[in-house]
Parts: sequence; C-alpha cells; structure tokens
Amino acid sequence: MGRIYNFAAGPSTLPLPTLEEASKKLVDFEGKGMSLIEMSHRGKIFDALHNETITLMKEIYQIPENFHILFLQGGATLQFGMVPMAFLKQGDTADFINTGAWAKKAISDAKIVGKINTIWDGKENNYTRIPAQNELKFTPGAVYAHLCSNETIGGIQWNYFPETGGIPLVADMSSDVLSRPIPWDKFGLVFAGTQKNLAPSGLALVVMRKDFAEKARQDLPAYLRYDQHIAENSLYNTPPTFVIWMMNLTLKWIKSIGGLSAIEKLRDQKSNMLYDAIDKSGGYYTNPVDKGSRSKMNIVWRMKSEEMEAKFISEATKQGLDGLKGHRSVGGMRASVYNAMPVEGIKALVDFMKHFMEKNG
Amino acid sequence: MGRIYNFAAGPSTLPLPTLEEASKKLVDFEGKGMSLIEMSHRGKIFDALHNETITLMKEIYQIPENFHILFLQGGATLQFGMVPMAFLKQGDTADFINTGAWAKKAISDAKIVGKINTIWDGKENNYTRIPAQNELKFTPGAVYAHLCSNETIGGIQWNYFPETGGIPLVADMSSDVLSRPIPWDKFGLVFAGTQKNLAPSGLALVVMRKDFAEKARQDLPAYLRYDQHIAENSLYNTPPTFVIWMMNLTLKWIKSIGGLSAIEKLRDQKSNMLYDAIDKSGGYYTNPVDKGSRSKMNIVWRMKSEEMEAKFISEATKQGLDGLKGHRSVGGMRASVYNAMPVEGIKALVDFMKHFMEKNG
Repeated sequence: MGRIYNFAAGPSTLPLPTLEEASKKLVDFEGKGMSLIEMSHRGKIFDALHNETITLMKEIYQIPENFHILFLQGGATLQFGMVPMAFLKQGDTADFINTGAWAKKAISDAKIVGKINTIWDGKENNYTRIPAQNELKFTPGAVYAHLCSNETIGGIQWNYFPETGGIPLVADMSSDVLSRPIPWDKFGLVFAGTQKNLAPSGLALVVMRKDFAEKARQDLPAYLRYDQHIAENSLYNTPPTFVIWMMNLTLKWIKSIGGLSAIEKLRDQKSNMLYDAIDKSGGYYTNPVDKGSRSKMNIVWRMKSEEMEAKFISEATKQGLDGLKGHRSVGGMRASVYNAMPVEGIKALVDFMKHFMEKNG
Repeated sequence: MGRIYNFAAGPSTLPLPTLEEASKKLVDFEGKGMSLIEMSHRGKIFDALHNETITLMKEIYQIPENFHILFLQGGATLQFGMVPMAFLKQGDTADFINTGAWAKKAISDAKIVGKINTIWDGKENNYTRIPAQNELKFTPGAVYAHLCSNETIGGIQWNYFPETGGIPLVADMSSDVLSRPIPWDKFGLVFAGTQKNLAPSGLALVVMRKDFAEKARQDLPAYLRYDQHIAENSLYNTPPTFVIWMMNLTLKWIKSIGGLSAIEKLRDQKSNMLYDAIDKSGGYYTNPVDKGSRSKMNIVWRMKSEEMEAKFISEATKQGLDGLKGHRSVGGMRASVYNAMPVEGIKALVDFMKHFMEKNG
C-alpha cells in the first residue's frame, strides 16, 4: 500500500528522508568501503558525525552554553534511576509531581534511592490534568523537582513550566522533546528517549546545566557517572552509532524545514486539527482531558462503546492509519503526533474520523 | 575502492548479507508501509523478530534451557556495574582475575559496590598471559568469580575455563562471544557487547543461569534489576530495535554458513594464518604474548621501530586493509578477526605482510 501513516506512541514514524538516506548509505558510507555502523567510534568519520550531532542539537534546540549535551543508552528508564543515584544523596529530598504513568516510574525508582516528596498527585482526577502553579508547594531545600512534561498514556502535557523558587527542575521530555522552545534556565537536567521525536530507539538525550552536573556523585559504577560521560563527550564506552547517525539525519531534516519554530507551528496545526475533529463531533468522539492540559503530542479520545472503538481502529488500520489503539491501561484511541508526522497524515485521519461518524453515527 | 577489509576492534565488520538485507528493507519492511525501526516494540512484527532472535541465539550458541537470554542496553560497561550491584551484597566477596584492560574496568566498578579479591594479577608480566588452573586460589564462599575471556588490547584469551569448586563464573565475553562452544554449566552469568561479533553497537547480550539469576537484588532502580528484565523478556522498556534486527540477520548468516562449529573452524584458520605469518617472519614481526595465551580474535604484533609500524599501517590502509593500528596504550599493530571477517581478508593481510617485509626487510 505504499507508505502508511504510523501513529504509534514510540518507536514511531521517522522522517522519510532520514530513512532513505540511511538505506542508501547503509552498505557503503560515502565511498569508504564500509558501513558507518562498522566504523570505530574513535575514528575521524564517526567522531565528526558525533560532534556535528551535538552542535546541531545545541543550535536547533537553542541550548545555552552552560549546558552539557549527552547521548546515553538505556532510554529514559535508566535515567529514572541514574538521576536519583547521582543527585539524591543521604539527607536530601527531591520533589516529584505525579501526573501519570511516566511520572510514577520516576517516583518508583527515586523512592528506592532516597527521600522524596510527591508534592502533587493527579490520582483523584484520574490523571486528566496538569497542576496549576498555585497548587505546587515545593519543599524548601529540595535538591531538584521532577516532572514529566508530557504523559503519553493520559494525553496531558505541561503548557508552562513552574516557578520553583530556585529548585532546579528535572524533566522527562521523552515524548515532547524538541517540539517547542524550553526556558532552559529553569532546568538542571532534561532527559528524553529518542524513539518518539528524534531517532529510533536505543538512546537517551540528556541535557544538564553545568553547575547542576557538578553535584553528581562520582562514587558510582562508571556507566552511572554523569561526570565520566561529560569528561569523555559521551564516548566513555561504545555509543549506539546507528542511532546517533539517524538523529544526525533527523536534526538536519528539522533544520531544512525551518527548525524549532517550524516544528512548533506544525505541532499546533496538527493537534488543533485533531482536537477540532473531536470537539466538533457533537460528542461522538470525546477527549477526557482538562482542556488546558491537552497534550499536543498524544491526542486521546473515546467513543460510546468499546465495540465501536474496536471497529474504528480496525477500519482505520485497513486504510493505512496505523497504531491508533490507546494504551491497554486506558483503552480508547490515541494518535501520537510526533515531529515527523506529516500534516497529510492528520488530514487523512480527520477525514477518516468524519466519514466513520457519518457511516456509523 | 569497493568493500575494504576492516580489522577495527569494535564496532567492526558485519556480514555483508546483514547490511544488504537491512539496506533493502530499511525504508519499507516487507511491504508493511513503514520501517521496522518505526514499529512499536509491543507489536506483532517486532515481537516475532525479537523472540526469533532469542531462539536463534539459544540454538546456535547451544545455551541450555536453565539459562535466561537478555538483550540490554549500556553494553558491557553497564554490566560491569550491574553485576556487582545485583549480586555482591554486603558481607559477600567476589573473586576477580586481572588479565588486563577490560578485567580492570570490571574490577574498578565492583570495588565501588562491595568487597572483592583479585586472586590473580597479570601486572608483573605486563598482561601477556592467562593464568593456569594451578595459579588460581578461589575464595571459599565467593558469590561469583569474574574473568574477561578475551582481552582485546593485550591480545590474550582464555583457552580453557577454570574449575572454581562450585563458584559461578561471571564472564565478559564481548570480544569472543559466539566464537566457540561454552561449558555453560560453569557460568552464572555471561555478558557481551554486541559490536564485535554479533551486531552493531548499542546492545549487550546477557546469558544468566536461572538459579543464579534468582539471587539478584530487587531493591534497585528498575533498569538495574535483572529480575525485571527477565519477567518482561527484555521488553520492560523500549529495546534498541535496530540492533536486535541486525543481530537476527547476523545469527541467520551464522546458521547459513554452518553455525558455531563452522565459526570456530574459521576462527582457527584465520588466526593460524596470521600467527604463522608472524612466527615465520624471522623476527621481522613479533607477537609479545605467551604462546598458550594467544588470542584468536585480536592478533597483536610489533616491528623493530615505531616509524616502521607507522609506515606499515599507512600502506596497509591505502590497500584497503583498515583499522590495523594497535590500541594507543600499547602501540604496534592489531588485527581484530571477529566472526564476520572473511578468510579472504586474512589472505590479503598476510600477503601484504610478506610483501612489506620483502620491500622493507
């Protein structure tokens, strides 16, 4: 059926030019007689590509000079453990804001390591909204405050970043990384698995403020030491060279279409189209989320019965609209609209939603 | 110049059929309208490939039923930390055998976590040999005994695995994984980064005996918990899907050429050809390693002067024999002859060595 529209929550759709370029060069990288993924990570060719990728990330994401950029393995999941192991020392407290499934994973790991305060919990409203600034009482002296910027399962997203009174924010931005400008000065550390907005799976982007990084424990096994990765420019051990290459190509694609501001406009356009289709359906499609907390990356909706939802998903899949099934813990539908999803994919989905409603209204 | 022979120590040469197949299917995986690396790791297609890869590994590597097979991120480096964090509890002792650079990294991490005994250290002979069985006095009650089966920098390799009196061996087999049959019953845990013999970088194969695995600590952050990865079949979090796909293709290639016994015969043939060329050069080329400890994966040699070595490497590179420079810490030359290096590559290198000696003798 040719290329389909893939709304999967991650791994997820990649820019077609990234895939085409990689396919073309996978056997022989630019006439070198071997693939890039066969080359030493300490050789000139990979080293140049690695550093170019860091430079592109810094430039496109507008990351200030007082931040380190790391590429680490283990995804956001390893970061859930690495952050408290490095920064939550005995006698310290870290604040956590519980907005849903991904915040909970970070909380669960941090509790094993040290003392935390969950200063807000969305449980009583079933994780359908982000707290307002005036609901957040940060703990004086907390070493950091963790939040998840976008919850892929609940479909909610921070549309602001809170004032903390000087406590560095730590954020899991796996699902909305590089989709909008970030007020970097509020953050001590940002991490994001690459498999939604940046590249295939197998890597985490970590952006750390230099003065925050200096507080990281060094009496840890080598891979868990941020200082070691910083000192070696993420080449302490063999990095996942293919994923870095794909991220390099994806960053070049983002630059070619206009950079972060273009990505942000597309994000607004795509998510507005979908929420409009839901809101104008007269209740045929419903979004369970507080309007001010709606995610622009993962748009979730329900229908009147699970049978109708199953029919919707099955017929959509047949028409090349794939990956629309909601997470098993919440059901319903979910369209993940990451950076590489073209507007045409949303048009096709919105058209399908209208036709489906007409036929099955 | 067409495809060259790549003797790099890792990442390193891959089977050409693996690269060609991946290149062909990278944009559209078998008519699915998307790449495999864009697919959900919880979908049917990736799940089948993931399980097939585990089955192939078990079959080709002759791994008994009482072992778990895991695919984890962070390479061998994260395993250096994860193993002691999981198994070296307070009051326990683990034994270590120090054969060189890679054993040292494991020792360094384990020391941070708990109490260890380095029961043998190759320092006084400059890490040029593997200890004999009668030199090893294991600590009664040690929870495990660690060794590195092949040291890529020193060019030495265990050609036997020691009797420990029941202490489970833990082995870093990054550089000789799947190159010979393993007496699995001696091992509690084997790990190996994939980027030398199995696939591109970004993954570690972990093979754990089930009764050993049961002793792993569970009060650790999630990614560091072996029990979590076992329970979720290595899909607790998003795995590096591309690397698993490449390993799948490489395992199929190994099977197609005759499996482990064919790989072992090729290993002997290739390494014998190179050691013959060194030994029959009348001292023009010299291998600094104890003969019984010679590595069949990383063959190292020196020449009379560093100038001549530089000339050798430079001329070899021009003739499509790449990656022959020895590790910066030891100098000289090194040919890494992993599973995917064809015999033709060794023939070309041996021919070059002879001609170089004739011209510059």
